[in-house]
Amino acid sequence: MAFSPLVDELVESLRCLPGVGQKTAQRMAFHLLEKGRSGGERLSGALSQAMTGVRRCETCQNFSDTPVCELCQSEERRTGTVCVVESPSDLLAIEQAGDYRGGYFVLMGHLSPIDGVGPADIGIDRLLKRIKDERVDELILATNPTVEGEATAHYIADRLDDTAILITRLAHGIPVGGELGYVDGFTLTHAFRGRKPLLD
Amino acid sequence: MAFSPLVDELVESLRCLPGVGQKTAQRMAFHLLEKGRSGGERLSGALSQAMTGVRRCETCQNFSDTPVCELCQSEERRTGTVCVVESPSDLLAIEQAGDYRGGYFVLMGHLSPIDGVGPADIGIDRLLKRIKDERVDELILATNPTVEGEATAHYIADRLDDTAILITRLAHGIPVGGELGYVDGFTLTHAFRGRKPLLD
Repeated sequence: MAFSPLVDELVESLRCLPGVGQKTAQRMAFHLLEKGRSGGERLSGALSQAMTGVRRCETCQNFSDTPVCELCQSEERRTGTVCVVESPSDLLAIEQAGDYRGGYFVLMGHLSPIDGVGPADIGIDRLLKRIKDERVDELILATNPTVEGEATAHYIADRLDDTAILITRLAHGIPVGGELGYVDGFTLTHAFRGRKPLLD
Repeated sequence: MAFSPLVDELVESLRCLPGVGQKTAQRMAFHLLEKGRSGGERLSGALSQAMTGVRRCETCQNFSDTPVCELCQSEERRTGTVCVVESPSDLLAIEQAGDYRGGYFVLMGHLSPIDGVGPADIGIDRLLKRIKDERVDELILATNPTVEGEATAHYIADRLDDTAILITRLAHGIPVGGELGYVDGFTLTHAFRGRKPLLD
């Protein structure tokens, strides 16, 4: 782009966003310059503050503005239950469901030897230390039902083999509102194996 | 999102980008915080500089860092030809094709009475003044082949009815590499009407 080094730099910088290529970056830059200058300035400020101000919570590893995040500071959440998730968006999904009221531990990834991600990289030692210190009764392993997620869950369970903590995994089954005809075989098998008496 | 006001503000600000909703903004924010802090800081700087530093060129109305853009300052581009386009991305597409070596005028929109966009809003008076001052020989109306683009082209042509300037419109026809079977009827009609002798 010959016409403006500032616009060039803006387009180039926008490409650091995930899923944004040259054309999209260009469209975003032109949109901001044409119709959204105040939005662009707000975004600039928010980015700068977040990039320097957001750290990881010392207790749950989630993003936080303070050394210990609000959720971990809350007395109400110290229920003796810790839910292990792979990412902050998993945590958000659970929070939005609104039923779970315990604590969290965010791995920020999963075990993946092929990418060089070992237990230390996702903070498993920190999790084990916390479980001891906080006297956790139940550990819910809510990693994703993928190969890596399952492997991570099993690894954590193995490391806690010698303790009396109840270790659980989220139920697999038919999604609420789903139709049997569209559910894949693995899920159906899980749903059959996990069947429950109708009248408990 | 309960866990960090800074992350909340970042997610909210990212939504000013076109085509970015809540989920995408969240994904972008987490990506930047997790893996792209330097990219995020670069983007913050680029945004802030572009939002305050980028203005409109006094000659062609395109985005520019200087009062008159580089392209308009270039002696080579004063060929007596001005190409009128709707947006900076149209200009870029023509520049990337690389064949045209004249000047430009960027309307930053098109006439659209229903949206309250009149001739003054897209700088048509400025264009007419420039045509007189610069002694333009040919005006290429390269607005889009849409209802609004055609109307804008015709409006400009009407306003120049009393001058001796050659006014042209880009050719419509079959795209190079296209297959006849997939070309729509309007385009084919245009292609037939605009047919040329094989051996000029």
